[in-house]
Amino acid sequence: MTVVEAVRWSVGGDAVEIIDQRLLPNELVRRELRTVDDVCDAILTLSVRGAPAIGIAGAMGLVVALSRHTDDTREHFVATAESLCDRIGSVRPTAVNLPWAMERMCRTARTTPGHPREILSVLRAEATGILYEDRAMCRRIGEYGLTLLPETASVLTHCNAGALATGGLGTALAPIYLAAEAGRRVHVFANETRPLLQGSRLTAWELTQAGIDVTVLADGMAASLMKGGAVDLVIVGADRIAANGDVANKIGTYALALAARYHDIPFYVAAPRSTVDPATASGCDIAIEHRDSDEMREWNGTLIMPPKASVYNPAFDVTPAELITAIITDEGIVRPPYAFVAIGNPADVAG
Amino acid sequence: MTVVEAVRWSVGGDAVEIIDQRLLPNELVRRELRTVDDVCDAILTLSVRGAPAIGIAGAMGLVVALSRHTDDTREHFVATAESLCDRIGSVRPTAVNLPWAMERMCRTARTTPGHPREILSVLRAEATGILYEDRAMCRRIGEYGLTLLPETASVLTHCNAGALATGGLGTALAPIYLAAEAGRRVHVFANETRPLLQGSRLTAWELTQAGIDVTVLADGMAASLMKGGAVDLVIVGADRIAANGDVANKIGTYALALAARYHDIPFYVAAPRSTVDPATASGCDIAIEHRDSDEMREWNGTLIMPPKASVYNPAFDVTPAELITAIITDEGIVRPPYAFVAIGNPADVAG
Repeated sequence: MTVVEAVRWSVGGDAVEIIDQRLLPNELVRRELRTVDDVCDAILTLSVRGAPAIGIAGAMGLVVALSRHTDDTREHFVATAESLCDRIGSVRPTAVNLPWAMERMCRTARTTPGHPREILSVLRAEATGILYEDRAMCRRIGEYGLTLLPETASVLTHCNAGALATGGLGTALAPIYLAAEAGRRVHVFANETRPLLQGSRLTAWELTQAGIDVTVLADGMAASLMKGGAVDLVIVGADRIAANGDVANKIGTYALALAARYHDIPFYVAAPRSTVDPATASGCDIAIEHRDSDEMREWNGTLIMPPKASVYNPAFDVTPAELITAIITDEGIVRPPYAFVAIGNPADVAG
Repeated sequence: MTVVEAVRWSVGGDAVEIIDQRLLPNELVRRELRTVDDVCDAILTLSVRGAPAIGIAGAMGLVVALSRHTDDTREHFVATAESLCDRIGSVRPTAVNLPWAMERMCRTARTTPGHPREILSVLRAEATGILYEDRAMCRRIGEYGLTLLPETASVLTHCNAGALATGGLGTALAPIYLAAEAGRRVHVFANETRPLLQGSRLTAWELTQAGIDVTVLADGMAASLMKGGAVDLVIVGADRIAANGDVANKIGTYALALAARYHDIPFYVAAPRSTVDPATASGCDIAIEHRDSDEMREWNGTLIMPPKASVYNPAFDVTPAELITAIITDEGIVRPPYAFVAIGNPADVAG
């Protein structure tokens, strides 16, 4: 089974190699990021996306960018590292992973003794560590999630919480990869996920690469599919989980949870424990990003609605805890009533 | 207030003038249909669409096509009329209106005495009658529906059940037009309606033409919008209504009904009484058309999913009667428990 790698070191180790996700599913183009501009641009343009994946790309990108500064003094090198961490960490400030990864790299640069060449070597190990920890985290989520799948499973998912969004098997898709790896029959229904089509473009692509059967549907079709009895369970990812178990995830998730409840279908959220923000009491406290209306107005440069029409384009919605059957984390399966406590600082969990 | 006319006689009366709906919202192109090939092609390619509108276009198109046969014998003329009615009536056999309109025209041709020129004149009056009856039906639906709108109304709709789909104000949009005509404040939220985007391309276009405020959203955003309290009520159209009140309508309607129920928002279906098929006991008896997967796979000729992925693309779904607050018909507002009886033959109602 081939699971794609969204982010990895290039063969020589002197670049960060990413899959340009903007070109999927039509072209598989791997790009080598060699400068801080390359890295920031790739994150900004969503060439690399998914909260864990951009944290990894940022950390690895820092190493590549710093490699031309090893002849500097230690003070100058550390100052450059701090400045680059600030810059990379602020390209997409919403997801917690990117600033967290850059803060971790910055701390390592400051606290590692020795000359720039030695610091760089430790930073490289640290970035690789972030990648490998993420990979291990995905697998643990997958193993816990696998216990929830029937022997022959038909799973509905939304957006892309897969290998393309992480350093490993993904979160929502991890149990599916492990089921396939174990030779179990698994079929995935992927919501296309308007407006940016991460479901049809990315989830369907990475699953077909792994030889896993996938059927794409428009987001409004999911309820009808459930009614017909075709769905055993729903698994989605999460962008932020409140202390009470409310989950912010890609817009469209909430509608899916409502339909699952009506049809008595289990609705699972898969995410690292670090996605829980105990400082956020409930979903009401989560600010929802509204994105540019052009994402909805245009398609390949063609207008698909009259210019005078307004657009509603929130990036996320909040699914209340009462609709969530369980949350699959890398530390185990959590069931209601949810009452997460403050171990959820990503630095504490993954550091 | 400008309400667009989807189908009308050309100025000289020698052609059927339609708006080419494939080009909306970017270009407003009116096409003149002069031959039976023109008419069939326009219906087949969805240049003209919406069950009532294609019935009207078919009936008017027959008149235009027959106008070059008035020098034939009566027998030959009637035979030609029968043959053309068969041909036009079978272009899209699913919607009841087109075969019903063509059957009505055919019966008129057979039973009208006199010479071809006289028969043609009666057929023209009959086709115009179908158009005007539809226009009156829309207005009656609008008047009944208007009684359900609060003084300042925020209405969510799906697909296009508006002027572009009928000979008049539409069905679901008729109460909205009448509210605007009465100077009441009304705001429409239009689901874009994947895969063919009738909501963003057509509903948003015709409402902005009339100066009515409209906001487009992706289908998966509707539940989140309702949760935020922005929606007073939902009104959708119907393709077929079973005797027990179950409603087949554009795919995505069912998910909307589930979300409306969860948020305690009234969910109305607006349709002529003739949409009720008393021979269909319940939604289980409605066959759902599945459409070509390319509608989902491609966008402007660009693949948006990997070729190996399968596609689920039903054209309609069924909303059970228990989720429908009321059905707004041209004969009044019907509330549960629904038990429609057999007066629903379109020929009886509209003939």
